[in-house]
Amino acid sequence: MSEEFSLGRLFSPSSVAIVGASLNPFSGGYQFTRFLIDHGFQGKLYLVNPTSSEILGLKVYPRLTEIPESNLDYVISCIPAEGVLSLLKDCSKKNVKLVHLFTARLKETGRDKETKLQGEILEKARRLGIRILGPNCMGIYYPKLGLSFNHELPRETGPVGGFFQSGGGAGEFVRYAALRGVRFSKIISYGNASDVDETELLNYFTSDSETKVIASYIEGVKDGGKFVEALALATKKKPVIILKGGRGRTGAKLALSHTASLAGSVKVWQAVFKQYGAIMVSNFQELIDQVVAFTFLPPITGRRVIIAGGGGGKSMVSADVWEEEGFELPELSVELRKKIKKQDPEIWDWVRNPIDASLFQGTSLSDIDLLEWISNEDKFDILVANLTQDDPLPKDIWEKVLASNFLRSTVAIRKKGKPVVCIIETGEIGLAEMESWKWKAIAETRRQIINQGLAVFPSPERAARATRRLVNYWTWQENENELL
Amino acid sequence: MSEEFSLGRLFSPSSVAIVGASLNPFSGGYQFTRFLIDHGFQGKLYLVNPTSSEILGLKVYPRLTEIPESNLDYVISCIPAEGVLSLLKDCSKKNVKLVHLFTARLKETGRDKETKLQGEILEKARRLGIRILGPNCMGIYYPKLGLSFNHELPRETGPVGGFFQSGGGAGEFVRYAALRGVRFSKIISYGNASDVDETELLNYFTSDSETKVIASYIEGVKDGGKFVEALALATKKKPVIILKGGRGRTGAKLALSHTASLAGSVKVWQAVFKQYGAIMVSNFQELIDQVVAFTFLPPITGRRVIIAGGGGGKSMVSADVWEEEGFELPELSVELRKKIKKQDPEIWDWVRNPIDASLFQGTSLSDIDLLEWISNEDKFDILVANLTQDDPLPKDIWEKVLASNFLRSTVAIRKKGKPVVCIIETGEIGLAEMESWKWKAIAETRRQIINQGLAVFPSPERAARATRRLVNYWTWQENENELL
Repeated sequence: MSEEFSLGRLFSPSSVAIVGASLNPFSGGYQFTRFLIDHGFQGKLYLVNPTSSEILGLKVYPRLTEIPESNLDYVISCIPAEGVLSLLKDCSKKNVKLVHLFTARLKETGRDKETKLQGEILEKARRLGIRILGPNCMGIYYPKLGLSFNHELPRETGPVGGFFQSGGGAGEFVRYAALRGVRFSKIISYGNASDVDETELLNYFTSDSETKVIASYIEGVKDGGKFVEALALATKKKPVIILKGGRGRTGAKLALSHTASLAGSVKVWQAVFKQYGAIMVSNFQELIDQVVAFTFLPPITGRRVIIAGGGGGKSMVSADVWEEEGFELPELSVELRKKIKKQDPEIWDWVRNPIDASLFQGTSLSDIDLLEWISNEDKFDILVANLTQDDPLPKDIWEKVLASNFLRSTVAIRKKGKPVVCIIETGEIGLAEMESWKWKAIAETRRQIINQGLAVFPSPERAARATRRLVNYWTWQENENELL
Repeated sequence: MSEEFSLGRLFSPSSVAIVGASLNPFSGGYQFTRFLIDHGFQGKLYLVNPTSSEILGLKVYPRLTEIPESNLDYVISCIPAEGVLSLLKDCSKKNVKLVHLFTARLKETGRDKETKLQGEILEKARRLGIRILGPNCMGIYYPKLGLSFNHELPRETGPVGGFFQSGGGAGEFVRYAALRGVRFSKIISYGNASDVDETELLNYFTSDSETKVIASYIEGVKDGGKFVEALALATKKKPVIILKGGRGRTGAKLALSHTASLAGSVKVWQAVFKQYGAIMVSNFQELIDQVVAFTFLPPITGRRVIIAGGGGGKSMVSADVWEEEGFELPELSVELRKKIKKQDPEIWDWVRNPIDASLFQGTSLSDIDLLEWISNEDKFDILVANLTQDDPLPKDIWEKVLASNFLRSTVAIRKKGKPVVCIIETGEIGLAEMESWKWKAIAETRRQIINQGLAVFPSPERAARATRRLVNYWTWQENENELL
């Protein structure tokens, strides 16, 4: 049985036991119980704790071996490290296949005793035929099954899967990406990687049919050669986006104490990523922007953009940032200019790409008309729509333009097969803005646009950067040269 | 009388007439009337329109010369370009000193006739001793007097002043920066710069005592030599942040049709900015981040940061991005480590800079204690506080940590004289989040922290970049070498 299939089966348990389940709301043992109940775990859920009889309405068993079920697929260990060796013995009796060690304070402490204990745990697990996820990690978020490692993660599924060496990073990534409309196949937090490691996880996600895009946060790899081999296979099948943590001087020192990893030189990572077509991002925001791009944009290999919307300053700076990311702005076609002239002889010779929407004020031309006409242009690859509010209008008009007309037009363009990138700047709003119709309208419009399957970014520069990396990847896949 | 004083007097009118005031809510003539009423303009406001008798409750005069006041300081022209020459004649009879031409479609059309008319307007104004702001611009936002060029701009005043060649850009800048806590002395939108231009405005803001930080959006300059002279004077007195629009190939073509400017080579601009200590930013978000930095951070010339808060992945990536922007992370002092050891012998040897807050879970140490202890450290220059929500807690605890303890600690550090940079990721929230206690708590906490005068940024990388440019500027001011 291949490793990949094996991990896939391990990540789909039909029964889960939380050992160290607890009544203390600040404990992992309480929180994991809540996560699985709240996310509607599909299988059987058992709780183990010698001192409680009921937690969150569920019966609690004093010991794993007391659970009447003879096959427990998956155990989440929330007990202190000292108890894990004897827990493994119990697991073996119940035919447990995978133990997730939320349990921490092992090798990442940098101390001899703890490092030794981690080794003993691994050795014993191997002997008993049990796989270990962690220690020092959050485990599995698999919305299809209702497995979760955090509050309020989406219950719907989607195409993004991945593996994160940081549990906090994994949770934050899922929650903030979810606000952008991204949904997930499964996300695995794997911590110290004592057994299940980055290479096995990468191979698994490469073969996982539920995952179309792989996102990852890695601090270090155990076996560079094997990882690169896995990467070479993965990037040919689907985009792989990696946030490498511990790139600097401090990070190299720190990686050991966070997840017991050797960080490796950032230059080596960069060179490998370029050669094998993996997409390297620098921070969590870029990671999220990149999964937004791959979730909502098709494979694009062209770099010609038409930028529409926003006033003169906005369109000017948009043109700058898209050009600086390697895109071109072709001239509008003669046919389009003729159409504009027919509609408004006053401004036709003056409308250019990027299209300054403020020119249309007081004319019989609307940016909506124009967006529809653009859909017939063929000498461009991407429409960039700046859905700006730099000229705030009265409520009725503004809501109409934002929510209805604009949406209609961009959807029309998309039907012609042209990818659309929308920019909506949501701003750092406060309580007062949360009460205002305008910010509510922005939020609602954004949701509607995302629901139509369009890519939405919060600023032109973030949109341009994520789109560049997407185009670079698909170009690399076609040519198999070095990734730009 | 110096140009600077002259502009200062012109920007402080005690009477304003809006010519072309209108009942049509989509017209500039209506909107400027609304802006001045809504922002509580302190002086006398007159409306002129030959076909209306009352607009928004104010009497309307058929012609400027019919206004009983013999001295009108400032006229906002919302009439078509063809009417401006005869308006100027009327202005002269009323001793008008400054005419703001919201009126557009002149030189920016690129057409001979319109270009000629712009020239005639300027010539006539000069002959009559009237200064022209524009054409094709939004004019003056001066909250102290209640002058405004957009809806819902802050009525409170603040230290940021500046001049913007794009009116839409100016409005968007003010509104989004205001959400970040920035307030303004005055912002001037100057469009085609036919008379009042970037050099005169820069000189004015350099001498303006209400302005501590100058922000600008420029597409092109009329006289490079004079502008550089003005820049050399300005940057010695206060920070000057410039967003140069039209940096790329398209921009160079477009600048002409937007504000009739010659854009100039971006390399020349960069070299000049470096030499004279002006801060060049690439987009509106960076411009806003930079005014946040200069509004809330003192003159810092050191590059040693302590990063606290967030889990392991978050602090790791934070360390990376701060290091990549040229900062260093010093080791925590022996004294601090002793304190930690006394409080918790379990983890003391393991707490490093950046400080992984997740280590404190289940210990008697809190990140709050630690922040207070850090305030006694002396071998660092800036505290970076990641106010993260990557480990969402139950409501009561979470609100307390965010809103009370954290604030108390950062304020304590600030009392010791150490600058604090806070990171709060607000996310692209939707309607559902606007209703949720958690996002409301984040918004409220952010407001409280800003009200305490602390600098808040939405991501580590944006914080690090803006702080780097601030440190570069103050270092340049000390050394007068080239700006880093």
